[in-house]
Parts: sequence; structure tokens; C-alpha cells
Amino acid sequence: MAAARGLVLSRPVTFVTANAKKLEEVRAILGNSIPFQSLKLDLPELQGEPEDISKEKARIAALQVNGPVLVEDTCLCFNALKGLPGPYIKWFLQKLGHEGLNNLLMAYDDKSAYALCVFSFAAGPDSEPITFSGKTPGKIVPPRGPNDFGWDPIFEPDGYDQTYAQMPKEEKNKISHRSKSLALVKSHFAEARFTFDVKNF
Amino acid sequence: MAAARGLVLSRPVTFVTANAKKLEEVRAILGNSIPFQSLKLDLPELQGEPEDISKEKARIAALQVNGPVLVEDTCLCFNALKGLPGPYIKWFLQKLGHEGLNNLLMAYDDKSAYALCVFSFAAGPDSEPITFSGKTPGKIVPPRGPNDFGWDPIFEPDGYDQTYAQMPKEEKNKISHRSKSLALVKSHFAEARFTFDVKNF
Repeated sequence: MAAARGLVLSRPVTFVTANAKKLEEVRAILGNSIPFQSLKLDLPELQGEPEDISKEKARIAALQVNGPVLVEDTCLCFNALKGLPGPYIKWFLQKLGHEGLNNLLMAYDDKSAYALCVFSFAAGPDSEPITFSGKTPGKIVPPRGPNDFGWDPIFEPDGYDQTYAQMPKEEKNKISHRSKSLALVKSHFAEARFTFDVKNF
Repeated sequence: MAAARGLVLSRPVTFVTANAKKLEEVRAILGNSIPFQSLKLDLPELQGEPEDISKEKARIAALQVNGPVLVEDTCLCFNALKGLPGPYIKWFLQKLGHEGLNNLLMAYDDKSAYALCVFSFAAGPDSEPITFSGKTPGKIVPPRGPNDFGWDPIFEPDGYDQTYAQMPKEEKNKISHRSKSLALVKSHFAEARFTFDVKNF
């Protein structure tokens, strides 16, 4: 990412989210490495491939914020369904619940899936967004564990006998799709040696 | 729709589509009742409820065309899946095919579904779009008939022993979700008594 070297960030990076739980996870992983603030913006949710959706969202957010933005999308991709519900998981979870999501795979022996997190960073309204994808393989199981964070109770990551919902937060953060993509974000920022125009902070 | 009475259309209505088959169906049903032209525009496809998606698309299209537009979206909604895949049917068809769509219902005895067509008309960039929804109930079946128009081979409308794909076009046009929504479009235009500013035609 040599092109980004020396870039001056005139303002803290705006992380666009309406989800307090996501913000909490992001803070826990990024720590103080990047000055960021969060903002709830009503952005259009697009259809398409995960990376394309994320880039387009970053473009729109950077235009609205008129500054550096970080956006995040999460997908739950069933291998037997060729990656679907994928970016539409929110609607499928909302309408079908955990049992209905399991039912989608009734016809298949293959219950494998992956959790995908895509962050896109746009330095400003005229910058091409950069995408960071983190993937955690696992399988879809009947729900186990607390039901307070989306589809976590039905996703069991490979090598664990607990679902995301059953794992302690620190344990989950070590292997989660979100932590993997955020690690890429973090090292990009470290490598890019951003300088900050402190008067605006 | 009294508010639309007396509206002067400065240009033919632009029907936004990239699908030649859809254009053919629309022409067959609308005939010469409305002066329209077709245009392929690269519009964003949004997530959400079908009517909201359609309205937003009309807004964006009217801005781009800077004139009256008609946009169309088609959904295939499985009752056991609370209306899903719905607006995402395109991706599900593309990735899973006809067999995969049938498989989504493996866990359910209820194979009922409905085909939904939503047209939205916006008179111009500053007009609130008006929505016309047509629905045809039926059920999801293993594919029968020619495979040249999307999911037509797996949708059998109620009261018929043929799938959409097996029905003669004229027969399908009498009962289809698209013809029902277009009938609403047509009568709206008739009722609204549009006048046309002929010099621009």
C-alpha cells in the first residue's frame, strides 16, 4: 500500500455503525492505534458481492462525512448455498430466526460455513476505498449460548466445541472474522504511517 | 391519485431495464397506451422491503434521467421463508439454480410462494414515486418447461397445472404478477389524464 504512505489525516477516522455491540468489538481490537470516532449514518445497503457492497458503502460514506471513513459489513456464508445468504444474512436472521437458518441447509450434509467481515477504508470523498476481508471457517449448528448478538449462537468456528455465543469475548476476538479484518486495517494504518493534522482533533 | 391529474409529461416515460425479455413483456401488456422508451441504466440495487427498494430506485433513476421514469423489480417470495428470497431471488437463482431453490424448502411441507412485481413511477426528479404491486400466488416445483426466463420453470401459479415456463406467453400475461402491476400502471396513467408536450417526442 505504498501509495498511501505519508497521507495526512485531517480528522479522526469516522467508523460508521449503528450497532453498539460492533463498536464495542472494534474498540476492543483496535485499542488506541487509530484515532477514530463513531457515527450512525443512514447509508443505503446494496446488493451484490461482499467486497463490492463494502467499497460502494465507503464511497457514499466518505462523500457524506467529507472525510476519512471506515465501514464494516458482515456476512454469514453457507458453503452448500455457494456463499449465500452472505450479505443478506441480516434479513434472513430477522425473518427466519436461528431455526430457520438451520433449516435452509436441511437438504445438504454439508453444514460448513464461514463468517466474513469486510472493512473498507476511504481516506476521503475522492479516494478509492481499500478493502480488508477477514474470514473464519466453521459450521452452522442448532443455537447454543446467549442470544444477544445476531447469529453468534448458530456459528461454531472450526477447532472449537463452542459457538461464537458461548465463547468468552476475549477468546472470540482472537479468532473472529472481525478481528482478522481489523488486524489488516490496523497493520495498513501502521504501514501507511499516517500523520495526523492535530489541530482538528 | 387526484394529485397527478393534469400532469404534463415533457418526455416519453423512460422504462429502465437491461432485460430484453422484460421489455418484451412490458410492450406486450402496455401496448401503445403510454409513450415510453427503454434505457439500460446502471442503477444500484438496494436491500430492504420490495416497495422501498423500488421507490428508491425510481428516485435515483429520475435524477439520472432528469425526466419521468418507470422502474420494475421482481421478487419470488416463499411463504415458509417469510417472503424470502424475495428481492434477492436473482442471486439465489444465479448461485443455486432451480434445484437449489427447491432445496431451500426441503424442511417445509409448505411449498407455497408468490411472484411479486413492483413498478414505481416517478414523474421527475422532484416527485415522490408511486408504487404498483402485482402478486400472483402459486407454488415452487421441480423445473418444467423451457429454461430461458429466470425462475419461470419452478413457479406453478395457483389453478394451473403448468409452470410459468410451460404456459403460452399470452396465457401467462393474463395472470402474471407483472401483468397485474402493469394493469395498475396503465389505469393510473389513464386516470391521471396525462397530457404530452408533443414537441419533445
